[in-house]
Amino acid sequence: MKKNSSNAMALAPNTSNKRETVCIFGTGDFGRALGHKMIQSGYPVVFGSRSTQTSSLIPKDAEVLSHAEAAQKAAIIIIAIQRQHYNFLTPLAEILHGKVLVDVSNNSKINQYPESNAEYLSQLVPGAKVVKAFNTVSAWALQSGTLDASRQVFVCGDDMEAKQMVMDIVRALGLTPLDQGSLLAAQEIENYPLQLFPMWKFPIFLSLGLIAFFFFYSLTRDVIYPYVYEKADFSFFIAISIPNRICPVLALILLALVYLPGVLAAIIQLYRGTKYRRFPDWLDKWMLCRKQLGLVALAFASLHVLYTLVIPIRSFVRWRTSNQIVSQALNNATEPLNITSAWLSDSYLALGILGFFLFVLLGITSLPSVSNNVNWQEFRFVQSKLGYLTLILCTAHTLVYGGKRFLSPSSYRWYLPNTYMLSLIIPCIVLVVKFVLILPCLDKPLTRIRQGWERNPQYSE
Amino acid sequence: MKKNSSNAMALAPNTSNKRETVCIFGTGDFGRALGHKMIQSGYPVVFGSRSTQTSSLIPKDAEVLSHAEAAQKAAIIIIAIQRQHYNFLTPLAEILHGKVLVDVSNNSKINQYPESNAEYLSQLVPGAKVVKAFNTVSAWALQSGTLDASRQVFVCGDDMEAKQMVMDIVRALGLTPLDQGSLLAAQEIENYPLQLFPMWKFPIFLSLGLIAFFFFYSLTRDVIYPYVYEKADFSFFIAISIPNRICPVLALILLALVYLPGVLAAIIQLYRGTKYRRFPDWLDKWMLCRKQLGLVALAFASLHVLYTLVIPIRSFVRWRTSNQIVSQALNNATEPLNITSAWLSDSYLALGILGFFLFVLLGITSLPSVSNNVNWQEFRFVQSKLGYLTLILCTAHTLVYGGKRFLSPSSYRWYLPNTYMLSLIIPCIVLVVKFVLILPCLDKPLTRIRQGWERNPQYSE
Amino acid sequence: MKKNSSNAMALAPNTSNKRETVCIFGTGDFGRALGHKMIQSGYPVVFGSRSTQTSSLIPKDAEVLSHAEAAQKAAIIIIAIQRQHYNFLTPLAEILHGKVLVDVSNNSKINQYPESNAEYLSQLVPGAKVVKAFNTVSAWALQSGTLDASRQVFVCGDDMEAKQMVMDIVRALGLTPLDQGSLLAAQEIENYPLQLFPMWKFPIFLSLGLIAFFFFYSLTRDVIYPYVYEKADFSFFIAISIPNRICPVLALILLALVYLPGVLAAIIQLYRGTKYRRFPDWLDKWMLCRKQLGLVALAFASLHVLYTLVIPIRSFVRWRTSNQIVSQALNNATEPLNITSAWLSDSYLALGILGFFLFVLLGITSLPSVSNNVNWQEFRFVQSKLGYLTLILCTAHTLVYGGKRFLSPSSYRWYLPNTYMLSLIIPCIVLVVKFVLILPCLDKPLTRIRQGWERNPQYSE
Repeated sequence: MKKNSSNAMALAPNTSNKRETVCIFGTGDFGRALGHKMIQSGYPVVFGSRSTQTSSLIPKDAEVLSHAEAAQKAAIIIIAIQRQHYNFLTPLAEILHGKVLVDVSNNSKINQYPESNAEYLSQLVPGAKVVKAFNTVSAWALQSGTLDASRQVFVCGDDMEAKQMVMDIVRALGLTPLDQGSLLAAQEIENYPLQLFPMWKFPIFLSLGLIAFFFFYSLTRDVIYPYVYEKADFSFFIAISIPNRICPVLALILLALVYLPGVLAAIIQLYRGTKYRRFPDWLDKWMLCRKQLGLVALAFASLHVLYTLVIPIRSFVRWRTSNQIVSQALNNATEPLNITSAWLSDSYLALGILGFFLFVLLGITSLPSVSNNVNWQEFRFVQSKLGYLTLILCTAHTLVYGGKRFLSPSSYRWYLPNTYMLSLIIPCIVLVVKFVLILPCLDKPLTRIRQGWERNPQYSE
Repeated sequence: MKKNSSNAMALAPNTSNKRETVCIFGTGDFGRALGHKMIQSGYPVVFGSRSTQTSSLIPKDAEVLSHAEAAQKAAIIIIAIQRQHYNFLTPLAEILHGKVLVDVSNNSKINQYPESNAEYLSQLVPGAKVVKAFNTVSAWALQSGTLDASRQVFVCGDDMEAKQMVMDIVRALGLTPLDQGSLLAAQEIENYPLQLFPMWKFPIFLSLGLIAFFFFYSLTRDVIYPYVYEKADFSFFIAISIPNRICPVLALILLALVYLPGVLAAIIQLYRGTKYRRFPDWLDKWMLCRKQLGLVALAFASLHVLYTLVIPIRSFVRWRTSNQIVSQALNNATEPLNITSAWLSDSYLALGILGFFLFVLLGITSLPSVSNNVNWQEFRFVQSKLGYLTLILCTAHTLVYGGKRFLSPSSYRWYLPNTYMLSLIIPCIVLVVKFVLILPCLDKPLTRIRQGWERNPQYSE
Repeated sequence: MKKNSSNAMALAPNTSNKRETVCIFGTGDFGRALGHKMIQSGYPVVFGSRSTQTSSLIPKDAEVLSHAEAAQKAAIIIIAIQRQHYNFLTPLAEILHGKVLVDVSNNSKINQYPESNAEYLSQLVPGAKVVKAFNTVSAWALQSGTLDASRQVFVCGDDMEAKQMVMDIVRALGLTPLDQGSLLAAQEIENYPLQLFPMWKFPIFLSLGLIAFFFFYSLTRDVIYPYVYEKADFSFFIAISIPNRICPVLALILLALVYLPGVLAAIIQLYRGTKYRRFPDWLDKWMLCRKQLGLVALAFASLHVLYTLVIPIRSFVRWRTSNQIVSQALNNATEPLNITSAWLSDSYLALGILGFFLFVLLGITSLPSVSNNVNWQEFRFVQSKLGYLTLILCTAHTLVYGGKRFLSPSSYRWYLPNTYMLSLIIPCIVLVVKFVLILPCLDKPLTRIRQGWERNPQYSE
């Protein structure tokens, strides 16, 4: 890579083993932490500060100078200062001309300012090469050396060489630089550390709501009802029996909700006769969090599996079994095998096992490192074909589990149907509509629409 | 990065916030989808088309011009046209000189043409800088914004700056560019989206064949035989009992098949006395899909675990247990503990648990993000040492499960041995041969051969 | 990218389909393997050797010349020679001027020499552009084509263009180049293949020690004690019962040890009143292997789950159950349900399930590809909040499992308490101290210290 003739000295690549001096503006916590770490990695560090008095907090091996003096000592200047104070840099514009300014700042709110801090810095000091970096790393993590979390440092900037120099420093500190392109990416990089699982919020709040509803529903049916009518204390059902009703119900509903927006989108497109009009906003958002919905559903399915497998170990179940056998023995009766119930029991277990197995497979393919290794066709095959197969198996599992129970009046305590019946509504709707949609008379126009055909071109946006 | 003096304007990096105009040749589905997405991301877009009539399908904010006019407006031209029509570009050669041409095309078959589309484009317009990109993304995914699958865009090209500009656009659209080097990589990039799990085909077809064989084998032994001789209806065994015979058998056989090619390769090398002759083609192919074989084996092992753990919940098993206990009670008999059967039962369960545990560990280390984080020595330790330990444990699990059963004539219904006996053949062969191969008298020459020594140098290729 | 005017020919990018000739110094195993692979990938290869006699081992299509002649034929020279023999390159300095020298060497010990081999090479031939690469790939893997393990090739070097050329070759061979920055990274790259799970050593040796201790402890209590006093042979407990005592105990202790160093660090910081003094070395090392400790704990927890779920299938357990029921039937007694024991049994199972579920969640987020996709705040939320919740649930699971048992004298065989009691010591200490630390009177100063405040600035380093 060739150097600019001006500034060639400053930007000379690291050909010798000696590392280039780095200047840090600001002696706050992050500036000091970064300084410490850089000195450890062999970089000479100069601090630029309003007061040039060395404090005991500043790393011993670092010099503290005025901003102007410090800036002249280094080609790279790290601006570890709040955005509000950036304007003190304007008078330094001449000294900073051609230097690499590294913006490490973060905001306290998402999209706090119209332009990113790095772009603002770049406007304030137009002659400098601004690079955004290090904002995703915490001072505490730098200091303690316990970088268990992401070692990724997003780097962006308009000047390739400046960016390269910053990325080399990032690597030297034991972190992984990730080139995010030009300075336009700074806004997103600054928003990144402020997010707390943004895509997970809807699935998790939805689950909490459903859990609350089904908990009280099951409590009424399984604990309060027998207590009222039989004076039987089944309060301990709260620990396992009721969770094991809630988990499969939530898993099935959430899994169906993963496939519902796709079905709705197909209906909307068929109705509109074009794919060139945007979906309603709620549908767009829903489609974007399908993966998270599916993973939450998988979590509930896994809990259901665990709750089910411990059944034979439960004290209550062992008591019930032995009481049944004892009373059978006392009646001198050995029952013949009921083939129908053997079939029902084995098939709902088998359907559940296969459904859960495919569900776990779907979960594994959604791991970032796995989904990055499959192409678009493979991903669609897994997420669409295998996904629907999973939904079909899980719905069938629930249907066979119910068996003929929905006919028996004893299933309707206080007119409340069994929870499993409620859970079947959405999956059955999704499967029926999907089945209708793959009929050739609807599938053909849909495919054409998705390939760009329009029924009424004049209506398109 | 320095600019070429010619064309400096066009290739100027994105120093201002305003994005560069992008030209798209072709107003087909993919061209339009890409145009939409680019306009959303802030790029001015010009379409180049034969007919300059704006259609309602073309994004409103985009201009539609003739090819020549459109090309002059932008430094980057995306060629969203089928390869067959590329020759219309020849007369435009002068206008396209120095421009960045982005080839986004795909073929319908793997290796359809002798050279990749991008290389063909580069030959047609020698003065242009051809970059291959975007072919792994689907128009539908771009349009709907639901890029759940891989956001990776493979980019290759001979001109570094042109590639960098395209990668910046890729990033701006929210996708992840992956630099694949020079234009030579285009062939592979064009083949990529056409593959559907190419490495999985052999393991999956093999499994399907084995499943079919063992299904009918078990059906004969476990359902038809008792029906013929005892008129007992065990048809419900199809749901759980028979799958739970097939799964462990397949898991063990496939796991052994993972290690068989390595053993065969060692024998071939010992026999030939050199490592410098290629293995037969079938062995090469087999070795390349060992990971997939192992993962399919793990899937069957997981199913086996689930099928086994639900045993106590099965209606049939509960019926059998209670009948046994009732008849025991009616006979007034409490049996003493049979230490041998307690030992056998506990040890085959323990061996199975440990084997499965190690198997899952092997599976986790084969996740791309995990295997990329271990070095060669660590990977060999896990896949070879732990792999053989897993095979030994699983074989022992099956042997102990069988116990003395292979001696009892009742195990041979219609002269058919138990399925577990069939499953032991390959694993035992692999383990015995491997054991022979690690004897010093064979291990030493093998190690020397693998370090490059030859017994009969004249015979080498 | 612009070329240097000198050497422009040699460094011309691969604009034609023809690949550049590559020269390999050294005809040892690795040199030959690399040569074979390069010829397969379409590179003309020239070997430079002391004796120019072609051996049958050298790929047929490769020329063998003297070092000087070979070097003149290529722009890239791969030095496949031991570091000890590098000094033969000094007389060739003039010919090697401007060439790209690729150092592929490895050492036999970590940090064997004061400077890395690549830096040493760069000092010997100052006019050449040294690039470190290929050292993480094994000759055997190159030859056999079975690159199941990491395909990553770490590349570093001071000259960007030289590095780019080497990375293109790496890609052409089907491997993944990873730019590690300047030649300073060579030391680390050379150490990399010599490591065998360095961070796992402490957790694994600690586990082995604890396993040995708890094995003999449980053996004494559960096998030897009943044998001595009741002449009962419970030797088969070694297969499942004793492992199922050891696993949960180890899982809980190791999980607590993950959080103990954080608690200790907080105490040290509170006591010192500053965060600017380094922790003792043992604490630093301990903190760095917390992830590995946690994963080993998760492994034991998973084994515990499997061992527990097979309980009802065990021959011994089925014998015990049926005997109990038979004797109950013979006594004509049906017991009433014991609500307390139903509550205890269900709650310890439920706590265990939830604890294990969260534990698996923690494990999944520690997968590299997942933890790279969460930001610092999300990672801390998962690892700290969810981590402590896991510890609380698992400790509660163990406490409820014990129930009132610790009061009963029969739990103390030969004065030895139950293993589960021993396992509770460390978790309870961690949880109590953590609870004290989040009291506002301690949490406030700690937060201030972690933000950089110092109680006694004069004492800081």
